[in-house]
Amino acid sequence: MDKRIVASLDITDRRVLLDLASRLSDEIFAIKINWPTILTCGVDIIRELSDFGNVICDLKIADIPNTNRMIMEIIRERNPFAVIAHAFPGLDSIQALLDASEGVKVIGVVSMSNEGAERYLNPLHLKILNDLKNTSAYGIIAPGNDYRILQEIAKKRGNLKIFSPGIGAQGGSPSLAIMNGADYIIIGRNIYNAQNPEAYVRSVNQQIEK
Amino acid sequence: MDKRIVASLDITDRRVLLDLASRLSDEIFAIKINWPTILTCGVDIIRELSDFGNVICDLKIADIPNTNRMIMEIIRERNPFAVIAHAFPGLDSIQALLDASEGVKVIGVVSMSNEGAERYLNPLHLKILNDLKNTSAYGIIAPGNDYRILQEIAKKRGNLKIFSPGIGAQGGSPSLAIMNGADYIIIGRNIYNAQNPEAYVRSVNQQIEK
Repeated sequence: MDKRIVASLDITDRRVLLDLASRLSDEIFAIKINWPTILTCGVDIIRELSDFGNVICDLKIADIPNTNRMIMEIIRERNPFAVIAHAFPGLDSIQALLDASEGVKVIGVVSMSNEGAERYLNPLHLKILNDLKNTSAYGIIAPGNDYRILQEIAKKRGNLKIFSPGIGAQGGSPSLAIMNGADYIIIGRNIYNAQNPEAYVRSVNQQIEK
Repeated sequence: MDKRIVASLDITDRRVLLDLASRLSDEIFAIKINWPTILTCGVDIIRELSDFGNVICDLKIADIPNTNRMIMEIIRERNPFAVIAHAFPGLDSIQALLDASEGVKVIGVVSMSNEGAERYLNPLHLKILNDLKNTSAYGIIAPGNDYRILQEIAKKRGNLKIFSPGIGAQGGSPSLAIMNGADYIIIGRNIYNAQNPEAYVRSVNQQIEK
């Protein structure tokens, strides 16, 4: 079976991160890192991690087209699988990333899991989703702990792959998220705080297969 | 007179950047850098630049509260004057930055200059502005090349300082932006593409004083 877990490793110790990445690599779809890791380990950590599999750079890029392009040009040289970007600054900003991607996939945010996101972002999720369907974006981020919204998005997502955070520590269940439409589930703390991360990831994979 | 220019130096060559920063330092309010500079030069470039004056980290931070906090904890150690963040992901995300700031100022984005921003972000600019007035944010980003919006924001900004991009290459005039409410004007390409950046900055300062 294809692997479905994206391990969100917000780790800032390079040695700990690379060790964990190597131990998990056979059991997961991708490793996701965010700015804290890149700031402390340097941008070349992307290339180092790519030796162990797919790397998703969760940068929530949200700038004007020209700056987005500059960021993509630097990131793409380090062999990432994908970058995560916001669509709310505009479709021209997303298009600038796509135009500069040279094969790096772009995953757009259509909603977020924090309470504050209900005020501006989340009410726009279907509008953003529809806009992203008209681009060559690869996927979207949609909540893995709100099955009603996840189902609604899954019905309307066209060819976009769904990556769902909010699993584990934030309440979502891996198998329920997948049954409700997630293609990939993003798990963070439950992996890197586990006594035995490999065993935890294997147990989630078994749960999904059932 | 207080300096009003923020030099937006999207330069990825560390030596060129530090040289230009040292030459401009007496004539400007702050240097603004973005991800391309931090990715290529490393996060400690913030501290190096801070030797020459105020550094504004234009990161357009736009994540959940916990990730925002982690980013601020790393950045604040490098002695920046301020960070720029999106309010769009929610006020809880802005509050997480403020709570972790230890004196670093937070500047929120209320609108952007790219055409695509008209679809989601810019129609919300007064709502975002009002929300930011109820936080301890230091300032906001508001267009320096759309005087109607700038005036409207200036009337309602309370204690928030207004930083205005869009000056020079993107059409805004330094003195008109200030007359219409900008506290600080952000200038990029016109500075670092000038034959003589110091002379250019001095001429803008003279233009503003009149």
